[in-house]
Amino acid sequence: MQNLMIDGDRLWQTIMETAAFGATTDGGVRRLTLGREDKQVRDWFRDQCEALGCTVDVDTVGNMFARRAGRDADALPIAIGSHLDTQPTGGKFDGILGVLAGLEVFRTLNAAGYETERPLMLVNWTNEEGARFAPAMLGSGVHAGVFDQPFADSRVDVDGITFAQAIDAIGYRGATPAGKTGFAAMFELHIEQGPVLERENAEIGIVTGVQAMRWYDLTICGREAHAGSTPMDMRCDALADAASIILAAQAAARSVGGMATTGQMSISSASRNVIPGHVTLSLDLRHQSDDGLDRLEAEVSELTEKQCGDRAQLQAIWNSPAVYFDPQCIETVRAAAAKSGAATREIVSGAGHDSVYVSRVAPTSMIFIPCKDGLSHNPAEAATKEQCSIGAQVLLDSVLAYSSLSYHRLTI
Amino acid sequence: MQNLMIDGDRLWQTIMETAAFGATTDGGVRRLTLGREDKQVRDWFRDQCEALGCTVDVDTVGNMFARRAGRDADALPIAIGSHLDTQPTGGKFDGILGVLAGLEVFRTLNAAGYETERPLMLVNWTNEEGARFAPAMLGSGVHAGVFDQPFADSRVDVDGITFAQAIDAIGYRGATPAGKTGFAAMFELHIEQGPVLERENAEIGIVTGVQAMRWYDLTICGREAHAGSTPMDMRCDALADAASIILAAQAAARSVGGMATTGQMSISSASRNVIPGHVTLSLDLRHQSDDGLDRLEAEVSELTEKQCGDRAQLQAIWNSPAVYFDPQCIETVRAAAAKSGAATREIVSGAGHDSVYVSRVAPTSMIFIPCKDGLSHNPAEAATKEQCSIGAQVLLDSVLAYSSLSYHRLTI
Repeated sequence: MQNLMIDGDRLWQTIMETAAFGATTDGGVRRLTLGREDKQVRDWFRDQCEALGCTVDVDTVGNMFARRAGRDADALPIAIGSHLDTQPTGGKFDGILGVLAGLEVFRTLNAAGYETERPLMLVNWTNEEGARFAPAMLGSGVHAGVFDQPFADSRVDVDGITFAQAIDAIGYRGATPAGKTGFAAMFELHIEQGPVLERENAEIGIVTGVQAMRWYDLTICGREAHAGSTPMDMRCDALADAASIILAAQAAARSVGGMATTGQMSISSASRNVIPGHVTLSLDLRHQSDDGLDRLEAEVSELTEKQCGDRAQLQAIWNSPAVYFDPQCIETVRAAAAKSGAATREIVSGAGHDSVYVSRVAPTSMIFIPCKDGLSHNPAEAATKEQCSIGAQVLLDSVLAYSSLSYHRLTI
Repeated sequence: MQNLMIDGDRLWQTIMETAAFGATTDGGVRRLTLGREDKQVRDWFRDQCEALGCTVDVDTVGNMFARRAGRDADALPIAIGSHLDTQPTGGKFDGILGVLAGLEVFRTLNAAGYETERPLMLVNWTNEEGARFAPAMLGSGVHAGVFDQPFADSRVDVDGITFAQAIDAIGYRGATPAGKTGFAAMFELHIEQGPVLERENAEIGIVTGVQAMRWYDLTICGREAHAGSTPMDMRCDALADAASIILAAQAAARSVGGMATTGQMSISSASRNVIPGHVTLSLDLRHQSDDGLDRLEAEVSELTEKQCGDRAQLQAIWNSPAVYFDPQCIETVRAAAAKSGAATREIVSGAGHDSVYVSRVAPTSMIFIPCKDGLSHNPAEAATKEQCSIGAQVLLDSVLAYSSLSYHRLTI
């Protein structure tokens, strides 16, 4: 294999160039799915890919596939990419890095006149963030058959505009049925969105899978009473119960090596001098294995029962099983990272990504780079030019290796 | 002293009669200060008092004083009463009982042709609840010089109507300057609004004072982070801090014999899968003594500092010192309750009442009767006819004894 090197400066300039589409005054990016700025970046993306000689196809949910020809035109392509949409208070890197590093891979190959065995395909998945249209990872989800087209079309934003209306309004509903675009494997480069790599001075995270996650709504009934005339021993304080459960769930998560988070909580008819009689809160439990999450869920269920008896109701509202990426893809990334000389660490993704759904229909793995303070979904989201370069280089080497090896049915 | 007996049936009928002014379909009363229903009950109250031969005077904040002549026209009167306004979801007894039991006292005295040494004065204080115009106990507060007239006039309800506009609209701004109506003492009968008397099968609470109360806003800064990609040991979770502080403050309250309540809490930019970075909550601390409350405040301040360091800010926003009622008035109530044969208990009020402010300018004490399940500010607020009768009888006997004894400068 040749020693092709990506151009870190060019990649960085490209990241800064696209950050103008939806730039906010605080240095962030607000580029909501299928909005005006999303159309701008999509148009730009299509132009860039076509300028490299790629054909750009769009499917019925707006997923964009830029195909770079390979030696064997009939072989299934190797996919790379991520998403170009952002959160309302998003940054310059989340998702964007994965797409633009893919573009840099194409540019590097073109500059070297390099022809891969398999075609390559750079993908921009629609609505990964789910910020305008819930749920998240909608485009990759429809591609993988997790959701269907009518479900996607019927999603509604806060202004009452449907996904179908929005995609037609910007002209990004393609003719290719979602899910009909096949590929041999997918590699996604992404910022970690957490603090682990930075803390351990690792430059590359070899992502072996994605945590199992479950969401719950917990409702606690107490008894509203006067804060001044109800002695402490005669109270049934729903907020005190909630506080105990939040802390106990977090202790349980620590003991089984998982995570427990309450991000939302509300007190009904809250008043400063009324003991809360009704509290609802969210619970987000995660673990690297489904078994571990089963144990954590059982513990939380038990401690809730112990604290509140039948005054509490723990309702599961979402379940995403653990994802284990393809061993061959993981091994390909590991080898590419070793070749680059980068400090590496195996890591399980705590966040969801398009690769979660794609991995159901194609061999998949991911490459992480650190981000500053683990911060994401924030204008201050940051990675350095060097960090992005290393990530893009490992992406390039992974793709080249996998294209060749998988085409010749070799193993690493 | 003659053995005058109040008429429990008549009192009960009167309570049910006035409950029609602002009656709600769930059996409650919605009679907001200076609204249409408040005017109705005020007109009714004036008529009833005048029918008993009383003169009714109104001061500049709408406090109503119905004067029943005594043997010595120049002596300062003994005041009884409470308030006729209610919470938006109020019941039939809170405040109302104290005014209507006073009316029953007057009716009983009239029926017996009884003349007291001192004049008696039945008071309906304006805006005790503070539900339409904050703060609470506004009429008695202006009377006692805690607030001034311009402050009262400038209070605004949620519709932008000022207290001044509202009082003029219903024609209840009298000519007598607030605070100029003097009296020798005040006795207020009230439901407990707590569960203590009921639990202990006490029929009469001899109220010796009102708890000290302080309100705080607590602000906790953590660090917003992704719930999936931030390990438990790398979090700065403002909600977990809040939960710990709420529970520790309640434990501290138990250990010093006080009360701690958080009734309001909010998470900034709350999201199900984001670790809370900023939480604000209310803290209501109470103790029967100012010293005890000082200790509780110090403990809460220390435990907050220990949990959060300078990430937390505990800001005092209101302070109401402990109230100790007049010993002679308390003793009068104790003797009257003993005479009635009722089961009694000394009690410190956990809630604020007009008597808190009145006690600053005149000897004052209160009489409590139990209420069902300690419930108040609720359509289900309830006391029985018998409980109301006992309370009114103790009120009558207290007033007669105090009128005579204080006039002749005797002590019990």
